[in-house]
Amino acid sequence: MILADSNVLVDLTTDDPQDQTAVLRWLREVASVNPQNEMEVVLYGRGLALVVSGRSAMADEVTQAAGRPHVSFKVCEIAMRNQKVDKSQLLPNVATVPDGIGEIVARQKEGWGYIKAIAH
Amino acid sequence: MILADSNVLVDLTTDDPQDQTAVLRWLREVASVNPQNEMEVVLYGRGLALVVSGRSAMADEVTQAAGRPHVSFKVCEIAMRNQKVDKSQLLPNVATVPDGIGEIVARQKEGWGYIKAIAH
Amino acid sequence: MILADSNVLVDLTTDDPQDQTAVLRWLREVASVNPQNEMEVVLYGRGLALVVSGRSAMADEVTQAAGRPHVSFKVCEIAMRNQKVDKSQLLPNVATVPDGIGEIVARQKEGWGYIKAIAH
Repeated sequence: MILADSNVLVDLTTDDPQDQTAVLRWLREVASVNPQNEMEVVLYGRGLALVVSGRSAMADEVTQAAGRPHVSFKVCEIAMRNQKVDKSQLLPNVATVPDGIGEIVARQKEGWGYIKAIAH
Repeated sequence: MILADSNVLVDLTTDDPQDQTAVLRWLREVASVNPQNEMEVVLYGRGLALVVSGRSAMADEVTQAAGRPHVSFKVCEIAMRNQKVDKSQLLPNVATVPDGIGEIVARQKEGWGYIKAIAH
Repeated sequence: MILADSNVLVDLTTDDPQDQTAVLRWLREVASVNPQNEMEVVLYGRGLALVVSGRSAMADEVTQAAGRPHVSFKVCEIAMRNQKVDKSQLLPNVATVPDGIGEIVARQKEGWGYIKAIAH
């Protein structure tokens, strides 16, 4: 199924290693099937653990994935304030959005597909 | 990101305290960013535990949240029958819908954003 | 709420028995309320455990559900390759799709409602 214009929003709110591994695998697999589609991972709540330097168990994989074209990682700034995480602590290539849920809803309105990341 | 017309449907099917806490926090945070947007929590399966009097560990928070403008809690009546929960057992301000999944699908068709509530 | 044209896509990525039981129950309940609506379960990651012969703890229920009109089970072929599962190992009436996430995003674009299957 080669689909044009099938952008994918992934919603990650857990810090389970199986969920984290699954998200990184999905990014590779979607890119292999539909290399022109946009993929965006929105992280809030416990999801932040994946992208905070010194806390992430998959820092290299995240930095590499976030540096690829058509892939973005966006961290909720409300969650960052709640958890006292500063932008300087985020892994390279990881961006922020003012409001993670607002970002997700906005993407859905734009026609992006939504995938909740749970694998455990 | 101040978005107009970005209504949010939250789907809760677990009774994990972390998920319950996250839902109540998200309701406050969405309201603080987008106070005019509608937020609706649909509860079915184990999700019912949050809104049943005597079972909920967060009864006061739910009653308060459900009493705010633009927030509604809607319990699936099929799940209530399966679990022998009567409407009289629901916390104040909590409403019901005939079919939780039907409600979720209908809201998505109306353009609401969908968020699956998992934080554990 | 009797809705016409409210097709439901269920996304299953776990092998938790509570999640599996919930999916099979939802299929029955949606059919009882909206018998003309299409329901499709997309399985990838650990979700495959439900539909692989010899591994599934609910083989009879799946075969029966997948044989009903308006119900389909679709397994991600990428996940099958990753897990070395052959089509011959799938339960009767279970189909495959080249790419599970692509299938989910395509259905959302067609207007199907999306439900993430988590109940544990």
